[in-house]
Amino acid sequence: MHIVVLAGGIGGARFLLGVRAYAREVGADVTAVVNVGDDLWLHGLKICPDLDSVMYTLGGGADPERGWGRVGESWTVKGELAAYGAQPDWFGLGDKDIATHLVRTTMLNGGYPLSAVTEALSTRWKPGVRLLPATDDRLETHAVIEDEQGQRAIHFQEWWVRYRADIRTHRFVFVGAETAKPAAGVLEAIGSADLVLVAPSNPVVSVAPVLAVPGLRAAVTDGPARVVGVSPIIGGAPVRGMADRCLAVLGVECSAAGVGRLYGGRTDGGLLDGWLVAEEDADTVVPGVTVRAVPLRMTDEAATVAMVRAAVELT
Amino acid sequence: MHIVVLAGGIGGARFLLGVRAYAREVGADVTAVVNVGDDLWLHGLKICPDLDSVMYTLGGGADPERGWGRVGESWTVKGELAAYGAQPDWFGLGDKDIATHLVRTTMLNGGYPLSAVTEALSTRWKPGVRLLPATDDRLETHAVIEDEQGQRAIHFQEWWVRYRADIRTHRFVFVGAETAKPAAGVLEAIGSADLVLVAPSNPVVSVAPVLAVPGLRAAVTDGPARVVGVSPIIGGAPVRGMADRCLAVLGVECSAAGVGRLYGGRTDGGLLDGWLVAEEDADTVVPGVTVRAVPLRMTDEAATVAMVRAAVELT
Repeated sequence: MHIVVLAGGIGGARFLLGVRAYAREVGADVTAVVNVGDDLWLHGLKICPDLDSVMYTLGGGADPERGWGRVGESWTVKGELAAYGAQPDWFGLGDKDIATHLVRTTMLNGGYPLSAVTEALSTRWKPGVRLLPATDDRLETHAVIEDEQGQRAIHFQEWWVRYRADIRTHRFVFVGAETAKPAAGVLEAIGSADLVLVAPSNPVVSVAPVLAVPGLRAAVTDGPARVVGVSPIIGGAPVRGMADRCLAVLGVECSAAGVGRLYGGRTDGGLLDGWLVAEEDADTVVPGVTVRAVPLRMTDEAATVAMVRAAVELT
Repeated sequence: MHIVVLAGGIGGARFLLGVRAYAREVGADVTAVVNVGDDLWLHGLKICPDLDSVMYTLGGGADPERGWGRVGESWTVKGELAAYGAQPDWFGLGDKDIATHLVRTTMLNGGYPLSAVTEALSTRWKPGVRLLPATDDRLETHAVIEDEQGQRAIHFQEWWVRYRADIRTHRFVFVGAETAKPAAGVLEAIGSADLVLVAPSNPVVSVAPVLAVPGLRAAVTDGPARVVGVSPIIGGAPVRGMADRCLAVLGVECSAAGVGRLYGGRTDGGLLDGWLVAEEDADTVVPGVTVRAVPLRMTDEAATVAMVRAAVELT
C-alpha cells in the first residue's frame, strides 16, 4: 500500500508519526507532500518551517514542548543579530536550526531544487517517510491586511508570528501559485497512491497552499486513491494553532463540519471521500462525504496510529 | 594628526589597540586599512577574518585567549553542520561570529560594498578607529602548493587552517589583484595622512595583499606621510602566527632585517622610511631606512602605546 499525506507543519508532523508507525505495521510506504507556503527568506537564509517541523519531528530532533524547532535549542545567533539591530526581529532562528538553513541555502544557491535539498537533509534525519515539498517553485502565502497604513499584503509569517493573526485581514493570497509546478515526484506519488490522507493541518494556510499548486489538486481528485481527511477542529476549536482566525478570514465556521464542507465532497467537485472527526463532533454532516467519529487527540503515537487505522478503514 | 595603519588580523588588531590609545592621548584620528586576502565564502557566508579580528578586538568582543573570534563563543552551528556532513569541515564558525557573517552577507547580497558593510557593523562595535577594507573587490590570497595530487592553488585559509602551512608551497598569488580598486576612502586617507604605520602583521599574507591593490602602494610611497613599519619578527621568530613559513616560501630570511629588506627603503623604491625592531634585533640594518630598537612585545596596551610613540618619534 502506498499512502500520500498532504501536510502542514506541527499538526502534520505529529500525524505523520502515526502514519509512519501504521505503515510499518502493515508494510506500506508513505510520501508526505508538505506545504511550502510558510517558507521565507530571513537574513539571507531560506527557512522552510513546515518541512523542518516534519523532518525534525520524524527524525527525533524536534522540541516536543515548544512544538516547533529543535530540542535543546540555543539562541546565541538570535541575540547577536538583535545586537546588530538586524531586521526582522520578530522571527527567531535557533542556533541548531540555522545549520539546517545554511546547508539548504547553500544547496539552493548552487542550483538544487528544494526537493533535492530536502532529500539531502533527510539523509541525516532519516524520517522514514519520503518528504516532498508541494512545489520546488516559489509559492508564498501572503495575508492581505488593513491597518492605519492602509491595505497591503504581508508574508504569512509576519501575519502569524509578528501580528499573532490579530489584525484585520481580508484574504490570503498564494503568491506564485499561478506558475508553480508540483515538485518532482509529487504527481507520481499521488498517481500511484492507494490512499491520500489530508492531515489535521490548518486547512486555510497549510493544506490550501499545497492544493493551490496547479495540477496537484486535480491529481488527487482525479486520481485512483480514496481521499480521507482528518479534522483539525475538535468541538469548535482548533487543536493547536490559529485555524479559527484563518477560517474566520474566509467566513467559514470553525467546526469539523465547516472545514469538511470547505474541502467538499469529491463527488461534488470537492476533495474528500471520507472525513474523520472527533467523537464530540459525531453529528457532523458533509454532503457526499462519509463521516466517522473517533478519538482525534494525538496525545501519543498509539492514539495517532488508531486515528490512521480508522482513516484507512473508512475507505 | 592623521594616522593610517596597514594591518592584518590579530597582530594588527593588538597593534591598533595601542594606536587608538596613543591617538586619544594626542588627539589624532586613525584609519586602519585592513587585509581582505584571507576573506572567504563558507556555507554561503562571507567571512572576513582580519576585519573581524580588528573589529572585535577594538570593540571589546574578541577572545583574548584564542586570539581570534568572539569571547564567550559557542559552537552549536558548527556541530550541526558537521552532523549534516557539510564541507568544508576544517574551518569552524562560532555561533556569535555567524551573526556577523549573516548581517554582512545579507548586505553584500543587497549590493552594499564591503566598506559600507564594515561601517555598518562598526556602528555596533564602535572600534574608535575608521576601519576600511583595502578593497571592496575580490582579492584572495591563494597558495600554490604541490602534493601527491600535483601542483594546484588553494585558498590561503585552506593552506593556513587545514594544512597548518605544512605543505610544499611554491608561491602566493593574490587572485583578483589585477583589477581590484582601493575601497572608497582608502586613497583619500593615505593621501591626507601624516604617518603611515605598517602593523607588525604577517608581511607576506597580511600586508602584501593590502599593498597589492593597484594604486594603494603608490599612494603610500608617493604620498605625503612618513612610513614606519613595526617588525613582526623578534629574535628570528614570529611573535605569533606562521610568518616564518610564509617568508620561507619567498626565500626571505625570518628576521627583522629580512622583513625590513623585503619591504625595502622608500628611497630605493621600497616602502619604509623607518623600521621599528625589537631590542634583541638592534643590529638590524635596512639600506635607506632609519632603524630603531625598542621593546616590541605587545604584552598590554601601555607597552603597545610605547611602541606607537616610538614609531611616531622615529619620524
